[in-house]
Amino acid sequence: MALDEHWFTEVFEPSGSAFSLRITAKLHQEQTPYQRIEIYQTTEFGYLMVIDGCTMVSSRDNFLYHEMMSHPVLFTHAKPQQVLIIGGGDCGTLLEVLRHPQVQHCTQVDIDERVTRLSEKYFPELCASNSDPRAELRFDDGVKWLQDANPGSYDIIIVDSTDPVGPAEGLFNEVFFRTCHRALRDGGILVQQSESPLIHVELIKSMHHAMRNAGFSNTHSYDFPQPIYPSGWWSATLAGKGRDLKRFRESESRHKSFTTKYYSYAKHLALIDGVPLLNTALK
Amino acid sequence: MALDEHWFTEVFEPSGSAFSLRITAKLHQEQTPYQRIEIYQTTEFGYLMVIDGCTMVSSRDNFLYHEMMSHPVLFTHAKPQQVLIIGGGDCGTLLEVLRHPQVQHCTQVDIDERVTRLSEKYFPELCASNSDPRAELRFDDGVKWLQDANPGSYDIIIVDSTDPVGPAEGLFNEVFFRTCHRALRDGGILVQQSESPLIHVELIKSMHHAMRNAGFSNTHSYDFPQPIYPSGWWSATLAGKGRDLKRFRESESRHKSFTTKYYSYAKHLALIDGVPLLNTALK
Repeated sequence: MALDEHWFTEVFEPSGSAFSLRITAKLHQEQTPYQRIEIYQTTEFGYLMVIDGCTMVSSRDNFLYHEMMSHPVLFTHAKPQQVLIIGGGDCGTLLEVLRHPQVQHCTQVDIDERVTRLSEKYFPELCASNSDPRAELRFDDGVKWLQDANPGSYDIIIVDSTDPVGPAEGLFNEVFFRTCHRALRDGGILVQQSESPLIHVELIKSMHHAMRNAGFSNTHSYDFPQPIYPSGWWSATLAGKGRDLKRFRESESRHKSFTTKYYSYAKHLALIDGVPLLNTALK
Repeated sequence: MALDEHWFTEVFEPSGSAFSLRITAKLHQEQTPYQRIEIYQTTEFGYLMVIDGCTMVSSRDNFLYHEMMSHPVLFTHAKPQQVLIIGGGDCGTLLEVLRHPQVQHCTQVDIDERVTRLSEKYFPELCASNSDPRAELRFDDGVKWLQDANPGSYDIIIVDSTDPVGPAEGLFNEVFFRTCHRALRDGGILVQQSESPLIHVELIKSMHHAMRNAGFSNTHSYDFPQPIYPSGWWSATLAGKGRDLKRFRESESRHKSFTTKYYSYAKHLALIDGVPLLNTALK
């Protein structure tokens, strides 16, 4: 059937696929200096934020992405105290990071303050920790922020960006990864969203290659479901600075002090092994 | 953007979502005595089979569903020799079942022979084991087949059906589960596709309830990605007849004699634990 004006549709050209949500209203739209942001009311997925035509966050399914961008890397690090988030303006990743009591400070650097202001209005549940004394929200260029950072400033860098086009294009190459490597302490870990294991195998391979060239000793990709992103199957890629990514704080993961809807100790064991089809492609 | 006639779209009303694939041609359509079947040529997902307007199988992503409907239950059973598939007319599940050398006989009972004939034409890779001497393809009513079966005929029953409307409606209730229970040997296991963990939590709960009422001692749901199905996140539910579903033949899973693209020993460990949000709902 054809979808009429009561639907928001994102077409993903490389996979010849599209995902649509039924909407009752467009609640907001604006062109910021960086991108075009829209907010929709959907019938079953709550609010939907769209950036440059791509679905970014829905009320209903964002827990999958935010949990899987934070807890795996946090539990993999031996002692995660200083955390940097590049992008992540909706603040959902920040929220999950701050559930970890070891974290002393988490700086979120998103280039576009409007993403955060709109998230505060439409996704207040994701912004519930924005006033945590450990949280620092900066609106700046993430690449420049990292270039200016003192070497060894962070234990963890989480790159929670849009797709590798537009404002986030500079976040998927060796130069950027080298800057991350320099800003991490020994034993530090970078994690970056890395698109769909079904569609973006070549991108994931090139990320591993660039991360190794940039000095990271260990790299590993893992998968998770993410309904509103192209194919509904997503991945993140870890890069360790002298940190074995197959180790994690097992006991603390198993007995974590907070609840999750998707991440678990058992899911962590599985993500260490990865996805057979990606592992084969990365050999 | 609006999608034109170059797209096939499945709207899923309960979740107000839709998934579309770009197509270049409709290669076939027919109304069988049971359902309407269409075959499309897509640009990036290979061939697509649609039944009664719902996407069933694509060349590109069916491995996820077929691996996860077969290998978990096969490795959970202590000695899987006699297997029955209800539905599964595309033969992809049969193919995966027959990768297990312990299987002596696998009977596939799909009500609609046309599904299999079209799969042979458009998805020959899924039908590669149809002439295996252990395979028996029957075209009959699965409910009746089970009613007529001698008690204790099967080690494993796999219900690989369409959604719980139309021809498959009778496969999601206590009467059907009781028939399955009777047809299983002691230690036998039923596995059934159980829709999306994001959307169908109430259906999954009612399945567990009905399975327990039907006499199954153990029930457990697990998740996997499945891009072309609503939400892209899918589940299956196991029911054990006196079989602990947390046990599996670990060594044989770890050292399996065939390759997979998604299923792995580590994924099996994780599926035993399940999905936190489902586990909470099922408490």
